[in-house]
Amino acid sequence: MTNYKLAFLGFGNVGQALADLLSKKKNEIVNNYDINFSVTGIATGRHGMAIDPNGIELSKVCDLAKRDETITSLNRNNELLSAKDFIQKCRADVMFESIPVNYENGQPAVDLIRSSLEAGLHTVSANKGPVVHAYQELTSLAKTKGIKYYFESAVMDGAPIFGLFRETLPAATVLSIHGVLNSTTNLILSRMEKGESFDQAIAYTRSLGISETDPSGDIDGWDAAVKLCALVTVLMKKPITPQEISRTGIRGITLDEIRKAQSEGLRWKLICEAKWDGNQLKTSVSPEKVEINSPFYRIDGTTSIVQIESDVLGRLTFIEENPGTHTTAYGMLADFLNIVRKN
Amino acid sequence: MTNYKLAFLGFGNVGQALADLLSKKKNEIVNNYDINFSVTGIATGRHGMAIDPNGIELSKVCDLAKRDETITSLNRNNELLSAKDFIQKCRADVMFESIPVNYENGQPAVDLIRSSLEAGLHTVSANKGPVVHAYQELTSLAKTKGIKYYFESAVMDGAPIFGLFRETLPAATVLSIHGVLNSTTNLILSRMEKGESFDQAIAYTRSLGISETDPSGDIDGWDAAVKLCALVTVLMKKPITPQEISRTGIRGITLDEIRKAQSEGLRWKLICEAKWDGNQLKTSVSPEKVEINSPFYRIDGTTSIVQIESDVLGRLTFIEENPGTHTTAYGMLADFLNIVRKN
Repeated sequence: MTNYKLAFLGFGNVGQALADLLSKKKNEIVNNYDINFSVTGIATGRHGMAIDPNGIELSKVCDLAKRDETITSLNRNNELLSAKDFIQKCRADVMFESIPVNYENGQPAVDLIRSSLEAGLHTVSANKGPVVHAYQELTSLAKTKGIKYYFESAVMDGAPIFGLFRETLPAATVLSIHGVLNSTTNLILSRMEKGESFDQAIAYTRSLGISETDPSGDIDGWDAAVKLCALVTVLMKKPITPQEISRTGIRGITLDEIRKAQSEGLRWKLICEAKWDGNQLKTSVSPEKVEINSPFYRIDGTTSIVQIESDVLGRLTFIEENPGTHTTAYGMLADFLNIVRKN
Repeated sequence: MTNYKLAFLGFGNVGQALADLLSKKKNEIVNNYDINFSVTGIATGRHGMAIDPNGIELSKVCDLAKRDETITSLNRNNELLSAKDFIQKCRADVMFESIPVNYENGQPAVDLIRSSLEAGLHTVSANKGPVVHAYQELTSLAKTKGIKYYFESAVMDGAPIFGLFRETLPAATVLSIHGVLNSTTNLILSRMEKGESFDQAIAYTRSLGISETDPSGDIDGWDAAVKLCALVTVLMKKPITPQEISRTGIRGITLDEIRKAQSEGLRWKLICEAKWDGNQLKTSVSPEKVEINSPFYRIDGTTSIVQIESDVLGRLTFIEENPGTHTTAYGMLADFLNIVRKN
């Protein structure tokens, strides 16, 4: 049996879902993988931090988080630390990072992941910002330290799109990537097809808690562009930033255009695309009308799809239905186990 | 740089495609994985065998195979050996097995894979028969010997459906599997929708070389049942034989029924299904009419689809388009590299 000490940077919906999943799967992980774990540190954005070398009880911290209360009552450290000092002092083997994403420069997650790796912690991140803005640097740093930086949940939640290529498809060259990767815009377009106005549809996604107060990250295509960048950077081995992607959001699509498309048997979808054109990589995020034979046509609500063409397998398609914080949490658990398990 | 000696048991279309792929990818494998290889033995069903400890030139053996000539001119061994003696004397590190499948008992592949593992060779098989009839025995034997028995190409050609669960989805419990897994029947049903009779459609698939002279393995649902068994045995951890599956082929579907379904906006598909119903596993292969919203509706020709529901990720869907011997060969190459690579 090997024991691992775990720490959390960020304890919002994803962090809490991961804590729940770790509790639920604990016996299975002990029995099937000969791996045990305790949580020695949790640092939150708004509810303080706690370090306990003897292990923090996850049920207690989840109760406090659900009641929106500070967790500092669980702190066995004499002081409250900055995030960077927390990384040093939590004495963990594995860090789970799930702080809010920053599209423009990936901060402060990039700095915190760097600190975590420098301190020798395997670092599992659900954050797409650092993948886009610092993948090569962070991966090289992890390699130098003999540890791992994994980020399965950064795109398509827990669906193992990065692991698939990293672990199962050696000597494959990715030629193109197509997908519907942003669920908020997909849901907005679906609602508009049912007759809602753009503003009504946005209000609906907000009521579900899946879009931000400022929904521009979704509707202007930034979120889709960042996800496409992460896939291109890692799978096509071509670093690219969202600013470099030809990007059009769905703000300009009117209810009339939606209706006209429907009458022609077409549906509007926000399509992400990356493909090699000779030595040039062409990338775009833009609304397109897809016809009924397209596999994108039936992608409804929060479901995502990605098609990846490689030199060895032609085109493979992956569809992930009804994701949520529980699937993001599973991606992080899978990263942890894939890093440390022997079988 | 690590050198591996490779041997082939079976050198039909798949073996030859693998030889082509190994030649094509050799530099990439040397450069990216620090792995080199030579082929020290090839045993064929109808064209003799060859052993050469110094390495057999793949281009020569492919030329002979393409001209339908014996390869014994390349044999540096003084005798022609039985398959079992070949396994002992080829002195390889890795065996690629691609002999014809036997649905009923998996033989003689089961015995040959056992011999290969007992002789200490990592064994990569494209054969679904042994997965269905001897998965647990062969996997345990490999484990005892500290080597691997991998079989990615046994189902859905090279699409990494087994690797996905083995390598990327730890602590996941598979709850159900649905799919269209037999391409010959799918193509026959597609042709009948275009107005061909059952016999004309079979003749067409035979002309493409994708169905046997006796097409009953496909049209009576045996091939689909064997593939479902392989998925259930490995991914649901429940050994099951094709004889135990409730199985109906497509022989009974008339052109009238095809037309009637079309007029109702439906399509006939040969659906494989396995799901837990309490403690009971329910499995079936049978033709079903699917409606336009089903992801199975647009699965045309030789394309396959599988939907896998797990306790951690809900339902994931995988679609493999236009497979062929080149994708089967890639699955075998991927198995080899996944067994031996360090990164």
